[in-house]
Amino acid sequence: MAAIASDVKVLGSWASPFVMRPRIALNIKNVDYEFLQEQFGSKSELLLKSNPVYKKIPVLIHNDKPVSESMIIVEYVDETFTGPSILPTDAYDRALARFWAVYVDDKWFGSLSGVARGKTDEEKATALEGVTSGLALLEEAFEKLSKGKGFFGGETIGYLDIALGSCLGWLKVTEKLSGMLIMDETKLPNIYVWAERFSSDPAVKELMPETEKLLEFAKMLFAKMSGGAAPPK
Amino acid sequence: MAAIASDVKVLGSWASPFVMRPRIALNIKNVDYEFLQEQFGSKSELLLKSNPVYKKIPVLIHNDKPVSESMIIVEYVDETFTGPSILPTDAYDRALARFWAVYVDDKWFGSLSGVARGKTDEEKATALEGVTSGLALLEEAFEKLSKGKGFFGGETIGYLDIALGSCLGWLKVTEKLSGMLIMDETKLPNIYVWAERFSSDPAVKELMPETEKLLEFAKMLFAKMSGGAAPPK
Repeated sequence: MAAIASDVKVLGSWASPFVMRPRIALNIKNVDYEFLQEQFGSKSELLLKSNPVYKKIPVLIHNDKPVSESMIIVEYVDETFTGPSILPTDAYDRALARFWAVYVDDKWFGSLSGVARGKTDEEKATALEGVTSGLALLEEAFEKLSKGKGFFGGETIGYLDIALGSCLGWLKVTEKLSGMLIMDETKLPNIYVWAERFSSDPAVKELMPETEKLLEFAKMLFAKMSGGAAPPK
Repeated sequence: MAAIASDVKVLGSWASPFVMRPRIALNIKNVDYEFLQEQFGSKSELLLKSNPVYKKIPVLIHNDKPVSESMIIVEYVDETFTGPSILPTDAYDRALARFWAVYVDDKWFGSLSGVARGKTDEEKATALEGVTSGLALLEEAFEKLSKGKGFFGGETIGYLDIALGSCLGWLKVTEKLSGMLIMDETKLPNIYVWAERFSSDPAVKELMPETEKLLEFAKMLFAKMSGGAAPPK
């Protein structure tokens, strides 16, 4: 059974890749937490009070103290609770994991969003090229970082695994919406196997959204948005 | 005298706020390093090889291993070299410092760039509002984080001090170019005094660019750019 943590809450939504991140980290550390679902299209008083700057999910609340920004929360969880390390122990490996996690968020995820939502075929093609070339870079990085083990973090799920792996549900939805094969086993042999391994890990499995359910959500989301904004963060 | 580090190089430019960051961190840790200036408008072979993903400065090269992204480098320096701590020791304080540093980079600095370079008066006014409201938030954060001491990091310069303080030269240039008073002592009493204290700190003083020289550089930069791009990162 999970260890009883003093008082841990996560404000979020089941469909957000960014919300998956702190939840995976808490699962890795075997910490019980209360998951408070924000309703799509509205923001709770608790969210507005806890993250007044961005008013965005996810927020972790630990002993009444809020932490915002998904990867900052992951790092906080790693530093605060006992259990398997999420960040690599070596300082240089930590720097590389942080670098690639920033790449996923600042560059790669933007392209992923653009594949299904680009306004012209040209925009969509550019976005798709960004996604596939990004995955090719990550395929190469995997060889270096995993050191022959199953995850970017080595033998167990680490910081970069969480950053990229949390986007796998949306990647599948993007494939469905665009009719494109992105996770191509022949071009991305390492990442392809890694994605399966990540998704079926006990810390992740229950949190990975069903593709059909997420697809419905995506269609609803894109229909409501006038285009341009990213999925809830 | 500074301790002799094994082999530390920084690829950068004197005018870049982002390049100041690793250099301040290395000064705090009393680490000697070689500063390799990139020429404006071209990229050295070493830069292209060291940061193939972004091809951007700063890059730290330690024992032939490159680290990119300014705040990731600061964290690497903090974790690798002995000397005063740059990140707070408490995990929650660390999360807050990281949160505000991301705010400075992802939100505030973009507004700062926009004040002098907005294409219309409306764009400039919106950017100025972003800068001043951001500094008001940071003024408030200072009271919490500094705990009555002189820096965001407490008694000595820390992670968030470096993130925001490295932008002070460009803030002064923005004031000159726009004719606006941004660092208003009456509205930002804490930040105003902090900025003076930061700029005259022994780890920072030699690195803070002269306003007139930076102003010349800024005018040259903006004249060459067709607008839209940020200062060299």
